[in-house]
Amino acid sequence: MKVLMDAPSLEQFIDRVFPAAREFGFVIDRADADGVQVSLPINAGHLRPGGTISGPTLMTLADTAMYLAVLSRVGPEALAVTTSLNMNFLRRPQASRIVCTCRLLKLGKRLAVGDTLIHCEGQPDPVAQATVTYSIPPARA
Amino acid sequence: MKVLMDAPSLEQFIDRVFPAAREFGFVIDRADADGVQVSLPINAGHLRPGGTISGPTLMTLADTAMYLAVLSRVGPEALAVTTSLNMNFLRRPQASRIVCTCRLLKLGKRLAVGDTLIHCEGQPDPVAQATVTYSIPPARA
Amino acid sequence: MKVLMDAPSLEQFIDRVFPAAREFGFVIDRADADGVQVSLPINAGHLRPGGTISGPTLMTLADTAMYLAVLSRVGPEALAVTTSLNMNFLRRPQASRIVCTCRLLKLGKRLAVGDTLIHCEGQPDPVAQATVTYSIPPARA
Amino acid sequence: MKVLMDAPSLEQFIDRVFPAAREFGFVIDRADADGVQVSLPINAGHLRPGGTISGPTLMTLADTAMYLAVLSRVGPEALAVTTSLNMNFLRRPQASRIVCTCRLLKLGKRLAVGDTLIHCEGQPDPVAQATVTYSIPPARA
Repeated sequence: MKVLMDAPSLEQFIDRVFPAAREFGFVIDRADADGVQVSLPINAGHLRPGGTISGPTLMTLADTAMYLAVLSRVGPEALAVTTSLNMNFLRRPQASRIVCTCRLLKLGKRLAVGDTLIHCEGQPDPVAQATVTYSIPPARA
Repeated sequence: MKVLMDAPSLEQFIDRVFPAAREFGFVIDRADADGVQVSLPINAGHLRPGGTISGPTLMTLADTAMYLAVLSRVGPEALAVTTSLNMNFLRRPQASRIVCTCRLLKLGKRLAVGDTLIHCEGQPDPVAQATVTYSIPPARA
Repeated sequence: MKVLMDAPSLEQFIDRVFPAAREFGFVIDRADADGVQVSLPINAGHLRPGGTISGPTLMTLADTAMYLAVLSRVGPEALAVTTSLNMNFLRRPQASRIVCTCRLLKLGKRLAVGDTLIHCEGQPDPVAQATVTYSIPPARA
Repeated sequence: MKVLMDAPSLEQFIDRVFPAAREFGFVIDRADADGVQVSLPINAGHLRPGGTISGPTLMTLADTAMYLAVLSRVGPEALAVTTSLNMNFLRRPQASRIVCTCRLLKLGKRLAVGDTLIHCEGQPDPVAQATVTYSIPPARA
């Protein structure tokens, strides 16, 4: 499957179409034939009481990685929407930069399925895993 | 299964132990033998570009409802933690108050499973459904 | 949403198009505006060592109930296919007749989402819950 | 994490404790630090009308691979039980031998989470993906 948008192209697309999404703070590390990698430097807004990273922060990062993985293959299609997100919380994350990798398991005409894994930077064991599905609009350029 | 904490007791517990959780803005409508109902008056922080309610807002509400449903049965146990959250996004929600109901399907000694449904207030069709599992700490008072 | 096929129509359709599915042994109790109910009288083929009902039996019943719930609304559409099945195993089922109810949460043009609950007949607590999604072929009569 | 049982030890354990599970027909290819690989030579009992591999066959294989992955790390613990199985059906499988790989994402004292992927032998794209969780009995030797 050909990669239509690499990391810089994806960054530009997001800046243009979803500038508000930038407030979340993610950085696109990589978008290639193996999938997408996105990192999140953690700030106070991502934490919950006790100093651990909040569940919604982890879920948002997995969803973002999957959206970018779909875009990297179908091109600038703003209208792809999440249809399901199934996250397993595996370990209590430290308040450090987190890294999410996403590989596409399927990219059909109408449905995409991806598998994401989130690690605290430099740690071997994942803190969360999510399977994410997206619906892709019928007519796309 | 006996209800150990009703809506006012849950509100007090959250105010005391997780005051920061209040910033999310939820209101506990009901906590009884049938389960828990939580509402969220929507503000700008819950929206994403385009004026629809963000996925993380829906996921946070489902997770909150499940946490409260567990507490209502096991008593003030701050340490129960989410182990999985599987959400299906069913319809694009309007930017209106949303209502989440949660019924417990299982409350074991170690694992609780609940089913949540989110509606826009006054609308018949749900905008999201989630199954949420919690791990309950071994020793509880 | 209008019900296009009731329980007898669904039974006839299955007998004609999927006679082999009958070997599983299910019975359609009800197909109406509230959803579908399917029962399974248990035989040796449904059990696993220890005398409990096997996981695949529970998953097959949930999938069957969802397929019938979709058919009851879209009419005789043999080609609808399961895209995901997420089952939570809640309690060890006894080797008794089991009953599965399915309600449709969404029936879109391309995707259907349903929620199923399985009980041992006459028991109040569910033994399993599953969320099932189906893909519906683009052109349908 | 140390591997306590390799493929031949697992085969012997299953033969002794769950001989009936052998009727399903799986073969354990590998059980090592990277996870477990299980294959299934397809026979008529695994097919559904149309000649494709049935959903329950795929789900049973994923569940079996996860059970073996847990056993390979905790030792001969017959009582570990599935608490959830979430399968995404990605492509229509041909009626050929299928291969399932399972990697453990978490092995806690009480809960194990694994990620499985099923391919038709020799094909690059997966036909199904499943996340499986197991509950591990409190006291284990």
